[in-house]
Amino acid sequence: MGSSWAIVYARAGLQVAIYDRDPSARSKVIAKIQDALEQSSVLISGHETIQDVLERVTVNDSLAAVLEGAQFIHECIEEKLESKRAMFEQFCELAPENAILATSTSSFPVSTFASELSRREKCIVVHPATPPHLLPVTEICPAPFTDPAVTDAVYSLMEACGQVPVLIKKELPSFVLNRMQAALFVEMFRCLNEEVISPSDIDKIVSAGFGLRWAFLGPFEAVDLNSAGGIKEYFERFGFIFNDMAKDLGLKDEVVTSNSIALLEQYARGRLPLAAINEKVQWRDRAITALRELKAEQDKTAVDQRVEASLSVA
Amino acid sequence: MGSSWAIVYARAGLQVAIYDRDPSARSKVIAKIQDALEQSSVLISGHETIQDVLERVTVNDSLAAVLEGAQFIHECIEEKLESKRAMFEQFCELAPENAILATSTSSFPVSTFASELSRREKCIVVHPATPPHLLPVTEICPAPFTDPAVTDAVYSLMEACGQVPVLIKKELPSFVLNRMQAALFVEMFRCLNEEVISPSDIDKIVSAGFGLRWAFLGPFEAVDLNSAGGIKEYFERFGFIFNDMAKDLGLKDEVVTSNSIALLEQYARGRLPLAAINEKVQWRDRAITALRELKAEQDKTAVDQRVEASLSVA
Repeated sequence: MGSSWAIVYARAGLQVAIYDRDPSARSKVIAKIQDALEQSSVLISGHETIQDVLERVTVNDSLAAVLEGAQFIHECIEEKLESKRAMFEQFCELAPENAILATSTSSFPVSTFASELSRREKCIVVHPATPPHLLPVTEICPAPFTDPAVTDAVYSLMEACGQVPVLIKKELPSFVLNRMQAALFVEMFRCLNEEVISPSDIDKIVSAGFGLRWAFLGPFEAVDLNSAGGIKEYFERFGFIFNDMAKDLGLKDEVVTSNSIALLEQYARGRLPLAAINEKVQWRDRAITALRELKAEQDKTAVDQRVEASLSVA
Repeated sequence: MGSSWAIVYARAGLQVAIYDRDPSARSKVIAKIQDALEQSSVLISGHETIQDVLERVTVNDSLAAVLEGAQFIHECIEEKLESKRAMFEQFCELAPENAILATSTSSFPVSTFASELSRREKCIVVHPATPPHLLPVTEICPAPFTDPAVTDAVYSLMEACGQVPVLIKKELPSFVLNRMQAALFVEMFRCLNEEVISPSDIDKIVSAGFGLRWAFLGPFEAVDLNSAGGIKEYFERFGFIFNDMAKDLGLKDEVVTSNSIALLEQYARGRLPLAAINEKVQWRDRAITALRELKAEQDKTAVDQRVEASLSVA
């Protein structure tokens, strides 16, 4: 995770100083970053080379040394509450006074470990999809005591680095990205456990179905294209499906309400006039077609496809 | 939907006869198919032209005439139980005795409308993602009384057409594809209703996050790459997250069990030896990188990007 963040920052032209308390990890990190840069070299901007990016990354065996002069500190240690607290206490002691103190945690809102810290207003969650140098979406979740200027600065920094920041407005145990993933997995497991479908076929529903659409369009944007009247018409007609599912899961409240439909209508029509839906459908179809070509190319080089081929030969 | 299926079949070299009871829809269907073929011409195989594919499609104003000599009949009418039943009664009267009678329904298992039909053993659900000529995954759901030879024949037909068939082994109201989508939407609505995140940011979590991974790997395949010990180690460590989510939703039972982990282990290790995980991760990273390039290209031509640009100019 740390090395992937280093790529994000170095690719954007920032100087990156890495500290890892494990000497063996420290000795391997540059090679790891170089390897990842080689796999994804087309994401390096302008006329820069892998070497140009690498030159902005240094590894140090002293925490105090990497913190010296740092403006933005991004912690990526193990997911243990006490470890986070101890690390952030050191940041408060050793880092420059104005430094932003960010954590990559996927589990602990800042309030759970930083409330008592002397610089708690500088603390913020900056949680990526994995790996961040390839999947740009990044959750930003401030605590109620985080300085709004810190939130703004981190949002701008992520945009400047080519990431796609999303703002988590309330502190929740697993923020939103992991909640959404977990909800999908819960249903996948229910179908598996009820012996309705095989694991392989569950995967195909995504990788040969939704995934091809969701690579270009979020789920709300996607259903906006499924009705001539857009997302409002879609959820007015089919909202019962989602409310039935909510009930089936055990939820007490309906999820699709007139209020949520109004919010989605405002969002969707603010981006795309109804009259442009047809053009957007054609765009979606061209994008998916291009992705299918790309997938066919990539599949040729997949290791499990080769394993399968060699098994059938043997 | 019907015109998209016509493309799937005609592209695979099959003769397609279309009937629509609405004369105005009938008069437009060929132009619609031609338009869709032009958007997706790279998916036409070999040295065939759009015209070659189109020549295999005919439109007829008589149901009896299109059913004459048909081997496979694919109903795509409105989602009303009574309409389905009436349509399938006509199929039993007019179609050749051995014809397979398939429905595109997303809501009605065959048992709900075909139990009393004289040819119920020929009836089967063949439900696609939308549109099927672009998203290959296709749910096949037989009733308990469907002839297994019909299920096998449909499965092979879908493969021969380049679709990705998945077998739904028990009849469920919305099969699996729509259940999975609904579960994800329920969580998206919960986050929206709790005012945790904006609609736009929810979409970005998928289109700038998971979607880039799921275009190539199903969710189970994807988490198999997140632990050196593969999917077994992943769910042994993190299964509690999904069980917590199940509980939070209101479900009584845990979803990640030793039994489900064993099934997933068998699935994952049957495809990819643990030793090949690193190579597969590199493959994933190259694939996602290529998709990001493709996305950047496609985004330039998106209608809402242009709308946004013109709004900022004005």
